[in-house]
Amino acid sequence: MSLTAAIQSVSALVSSAKSSSFLGQGVGPETRFTSFSMPLLPSRKLSVCKCVSAAPPTEQTAHKTKVARNANMAKLQAGYLFPEIARRRSAHISKYPDAKVISLGIGDTTEPIPEVITSAMALRAKELSTFEGYSGYGAEQGEKKLRAAIASTYYKDVGIEENDIFVSDGAKCDISRLQLLFGANVKIAVQDPSYPAYVDSSVIMGQTGLYQKDVEKFGNIEYMRCTPDNGFFPDLSNVSETDVIYFCSPNNPTGSAASRDQLTKLVNFARANGSIIVYDSAYSMYISDDSPRSIFEIPGAKEVAIETSSFSKFAGFTGVRLGWTVVPKELVFSDGFPVARDFNRIVCTCFNGASNIAQAGGLACLSEEGLKAMNNVVNFYKENTQIIVNTFSSMGFNVYGGQNAPYVWVHFPGRSSWDVFAEILEKTHLVTTPGSGFGPGGEGFVRVSAFGHRENVLEACRRLKQLYQ
Amino acid sequence: MSLTAAIQSVSALVSSAKSSSFLGQGVGPETRFTSFSMPLLPSRKLSVCKCVSAAPPTEQTAHKTKVARNANMAKLQAGYLFPEIARRRSAHISKYPDAKVISLGIGDTTEPIPEVITSAMALRAKELSTFEGYSGYGAEQGEKKLRAAIASTYYKDVGIEENDIFVSDGAKCDISRLQLLFGANVKIAVQDPSYPAYVDSSVIMGQTGLYQKDVEKFGNIEYMRCTPDNGFFPDLSNVSETDVIYFCSPNNPTGSAASRDQLTKLVNFARANGSIIVYDSAYSMYISDDSPRSIFEIPGAKEVAIETSSFSKFAGFTGVRLGWTVVPKELVFSDGFPVARDFNRIVCTCFNGASNIAQAGGLACLSEEGLKAMNNVVNFYKENTQIIVNTFSSMGFNVYGGQNAPYVWVHFPGRSSWDVFAEILEKTHLVTTPGSGFGPGGEGFVRVSAFGHRENVLEACRRLKQLYQ
Repeated sequence: MSLTAAIQSVSALVSSAKSSSFLGQGVGPETRFTSFSMPLLPSRKLSVCKCVSAAPPTEQTAHKTKVARNANMAKLQAGYLFPEIARRRSAHISKYPDAKVISLGIGDTTEPIPEVITSAMALRAKELSTFEGYSGYGAEQGEKKLRAAIASTYYKDVGIEENDIFVSDGAKCDISRLQLLFGANVKIAVQDPSYPAYVDSSVIMGQTGLYQKDVEKFGNIEYMRCTPDNGFFPDLSNVSETDVIYFCSPNNPTGSAASRDQLTKLVNFARANGSIIVYDSAYSMYISDDSPRSIFEIPGAKEVAIETSSFSKFAGFTGVRLGWTVVPKELVFSDGFPVARDFNRIVCTCFNGASNIAQAGGLACLSEEGLKAMNNVVNFYKENTQIIVNTFSSMGFNVYGGQNAPYVWVHFPGRSSWDVFAEILEKTHLVTTPGSGFGPGGEGFVRVSAFGHRENVLEACRRLKQLYQ
Repeated sequence: MSLTAAIQSVSALVSSAKSSSFLGQGVGPETRFTSFSMPLLPSRKLSVCKCVSAAPPTEQTAHKTKVARNANMAKLQAGYLFPEIARRRSAHISKYPDAKVISLGIGDTTEPIPEVITSAMALRAKELSTFEGYSGYGAEQGEKKLRAAIASTYYKDVGIEENDIFVSDGAKCDISRLQLLFGANVKIAVQDPSYPAYVDSSVIMGQTGLYQKDVEKFGNIEYMRCTPDNGFFPDLSNVSETDVIYFCSPNNPTGSAASRDQLTKLVNFARANGSIIVYDSAYSMYISDDSPRSIFEIPGAKEVAIETSSFSKFAGFTGVRLGWTVVPKELVFSDGFPVARDFNRIVCTCFNGASNIAQAGGLACLSEEGLKAMNNVVNFYKENTQIIVNTFSSMGFNVYGGQNAPYVWVHFPGRSSWDVFAEILEKTHLVTTPGSGFGPGGEGFVRVSAFGHRENVLEACRRLKQLYQ
């Protein structure tokens, strides 16, 4: 099928969807809160989902409180990206109940967790039924042994110590706690495109202006454009001074890992401007080349950077929930007050530690056997990545990422990401992620995740070849 | 030992502590972040811990960022209460390494989790190693089955449905997410005394003014005094209009449960003023009399209340981490926008669901066998409560709480709570919780928790009798 024919098909689809239940699926009162959804206003352009402001609710209730809605919440655009995709997937399944839908979409892990890890969790669970093995509240910062193991496994040669590490229930949750830490009066910078939790949590915290529809950006956020032209590393000479720079490497969604030189530039930029880098290394184990695994490999980073990471993509812990954040004791605010001391207060006040069972799993991950097992899982997904890269490359697409990350970033020049998303879903029953969901810099791209069973990835590639070859 | 002699002893202790390492324990750089600690300024009064502003850090580092410290964080007083108590416990153990310290302090559960529950968690952990049993990201709102089980177990007759329930990693974490939901521009009311997370998270969110040392209160918070004189239910005719009313029943720390009449007054007050009640029912299973188990038993509550609860104290899940928050679809902001819709967006953006293993445990808790087992655990702690109540009563103390809660609230009229805390720790190696840590209304009280092995509770009571009889 040619591209032109495909565009015509999706055009027809979108037209019919406007008057059918396709887009409205899940908006009824019964399913309203199962996944967030919002009535979509019709758009004049061929675009399945242009983000739109929330329409007022249609139902009236007997009593209204006098509490004003938080104006920052009202600034947010439509739903958070991934639940929105889950909603569209559900809608598609309702439309095609017999289709075998394959998700290479939300970055969810699919492979079983190695037994050395689940055995440790099962054992810990069982021990909770014994007097000797029972434990109640743990330290909010995480168990000492696990903090020590994270420090020695991932930060051995860079001077990060056990008490610099705060164990959490995942990087996404910690990003939100970091926003609480910084408060409303900071300006942030993000890679564009980037993982949407940075921007959305910043909006919720009140750090931003309104959404500017014309540029598809929030006011008071610095969007650092990352494109094939600049090797997905922003031109820092164009970046204004900001307080907090969110930087993810290997990057979600572009799959690109910053080199040592690039990260050195970033650290020097932060030092010169007095900024704090929040470095997201949730995909560091996917690095194949000599790109740094941690921002703390760069000299001087400890005085300007926080690092957040996760067991989710290393060990399949997306559902188990375990991550960590490093706040070095050397990092201080402008008045000299240690950032870690305030973060510790946030963790103690707004969190109660990760599940003790998940922490037992984390400790098993970092045993010799566990590390080997995690590497096997990571390598399996990386083989998937190669299959996906080869598929798109063989069809003449420009493909980025993949080498150091479980994400493949495919260019569809001149097309809307949501259109391509809808086309692929409608024609092949494959769920991907529209690049523009990660920021305006992602427009024209689609992210294909390598998380999937092998046979599903192969089948997905066959279907993609049928559609695009 | 007489009270006078005891006061003289603790007076001597405090004098020596000021010039010894007792108070400084844990303040060195090595342990600084293991538990939050802050140099304590000497106080003119006989008081081991008057909360004081943070002193500037003593260490200087080579590079300071230009990011200003969040002014709201600087408003907070000393450490969060419970880590501070943990720190003092550690300091005491260092001072008396051979003492058998018993904690009736931070409300941490001690009894093993029933096997029916841990078996389900172990099974779920093991299943994560199989292709069929593996699951990655779950719904941010919690697994459908668990939401349904919570609704049918705790809210069957009050019209709360599965999709009104958001499963979480605990009530404390949800309180913080509720603060994010409401934002900086609301005024809150709290029971005084109350669980410190309400006030502290409000301060962090920027809802309050500065701490007013003379009255020991933050500006722009309405403290609703709860004393023996008003039966621990506030005189609402004295309470000014506020946006959000935090109300915990059975109460932590006073152990008092509000009656149906009292809660009806509270709901009517909220309806009349347009307020939203955040009702904390984390101890509802400890109710013995006919006090409501949920705010939603009160007619009209669904349009004015959110309820947060937890498996922590029902099933010993303080370390496992599982709770929930009910946001009824009937609850709307002043513009008619459903509160649940914004809370859903917060949960999707700032959280990624509770651990799937913990959720399997929660589901087992709500099975017939699990409910029986939880009731046994609760009843065990309630027997402890009775032992503690009887001990203090027999010595002539005025004792409150206990009947409907795992907390006993003991009056030491005219004395500082922190002094009594220190006296009990020093003389009996027992950890309690100073009432003033819960707000100025707690001054002169000490909270004794009933969470403990039976032999420890009995031993604690023997020691208390030696000290106070």
